[in-house]
Amino acid sequence: MTTITSEQINDFDKRYRTNLINCLSGIKSMNLIGTKNTSGQTNLAIFNSVIHLGAHPPLMGFIQRPATVERHTFENIQETKYFTINSVTKEVHKQAHQTSARYERAESEFDETSLESTFINDFHAPFVAKSPLKIGLELADIIPIPVNNTQLVIGKVKLIQLNEEFLKEDGFLSLHDQGIVGGTGLDSYLSAKEIGRYSYAKPDLPLSKYSHNR
Amino acid sequence: MTTITSEQINDFDKRYRTNLINCLSGIKSMNLIGTKNTSGQTNLAIFNSVIHLGAHPPLMGFIQRPATVERHTFENIQETKYFTINSVTKEVHKQAHQTSARYERAESEFDETSLESTFINDFHAPFVAKSPLKIGLELADIIPIPVNNTQLVIGKVKLIQLNEEFLKEDGFLSLHDQGIVGGTGLDSYLSAKEIGRYSYAKPDLPLSKYSHNR
Repeated sequence: MTTITSEQINDFDKRYRTNLINCLSGIKSMNLIGTKNTSGQTNLAIFNSVIHLGAHPPLMGFIQRPATVERHTFENIQETKYFTINSVTKEVHKQAHQTSARYERAESEFDETSLESTFINDFHAPFVAKSPLKIGLELADIIPIPVNNTQLVIGKVKLIQLNEEFLKEDGFLSLHDQGIVGGTGLDSYLSAKEIGRYSYAKPDLPLSKYSHNR
Repeated sequence: MTTITSEQINDFDKRYRTNLINCLSGIKSMNLIGTKNTSGQTNLAIFNSVIHLGAHPPLMGFIQRPATVERHTFENIQETKYFTINSVTKEVHKQAHQTSARYERAESEFDETSLESTFINDFHAPFVAKSPLKIGLELADIIPIPVNNTQLVIGKVKLIQLNEEFLKEDGFLSLHDQGIVGGTGLDSYLSAKEIGRYSYAKPDLPLSKYSHNR
């Protein structure tokens, strides 16, 4: 085992350090965020920082990096208040990664990466047609993170489209069974396999495995 | 495909809704956070909300739920300013899940779950001996999230201990190769396998796969 100190981290080459620090948090979610501005221009971008914030009310968030370049997703959310979070499957993960290229404002990543968009009911923002889990959110808050000028963008879940075949009797939605991928760092995509689901832990009680059909 | 509206989400049974909403964000990181209070009492708790916040400076965060019950991890961080983030492997994932049981303040989850602690250099907070990736952090900020009374706890990376066998020449650290697990929802643990690592995406340029040895 190697121990790396603050001083050594500071001395790393910038790209090396970016790669290493991005790997520390563990296995990440990979999601495509879809937006549409008031002129009707759609945008799609991959994020590896989407997190669960709470179930009552149903809230999700993601980290917005500093606005040193144009951030179309963030601008569209500020302008319209709506966005979508779409799962990334093994089937579309290369197209999803390609959305991270810096396209011009007038170009839609839906077109550029051939990821078809779809609209559900009268929800303003576009969804990714091929994503088996599509979530429509309304902006709830934008919280500044002064220490590095990032922001936590928070949305309230307004709509969910999912494949009920993977929804269990207790509300658990199996993601790995649908080919939904995770990631490490900035550029590694991972498929997942369940090891086990366990009971709610209590002191002095051994864990038991969940018994629903998989 | 089933479409679920806000009204339907509101009508779900509380436990069902908690399970479903916790699955929406995708595949999650699973980490053990270690702390020690000023009396020397250690604490260890599993979190599935650890995220990367930035590499320059190196920052990580996690979501602290509302203080409706005693939150030993959070109290210790406020008191001492130091905490550790430790990866969860397949080998220890059941013990890691067991740390979520509500032990008394005077009980250490290290002892209760037989996860051995270790100390590195003179860092105040305890690490999990068996975790192949150990990170020591100093509290940088606590940011309130008013919409649901959660908080984003931010730490600056001060120390990293890792197995250099899994560190690539560009700073990428392979997690899946070390048996580090991810999760879905509140109680499902996942092993991961790499599908591919891809080049930095640029418009009008096809992606290429990374070629380092794995």
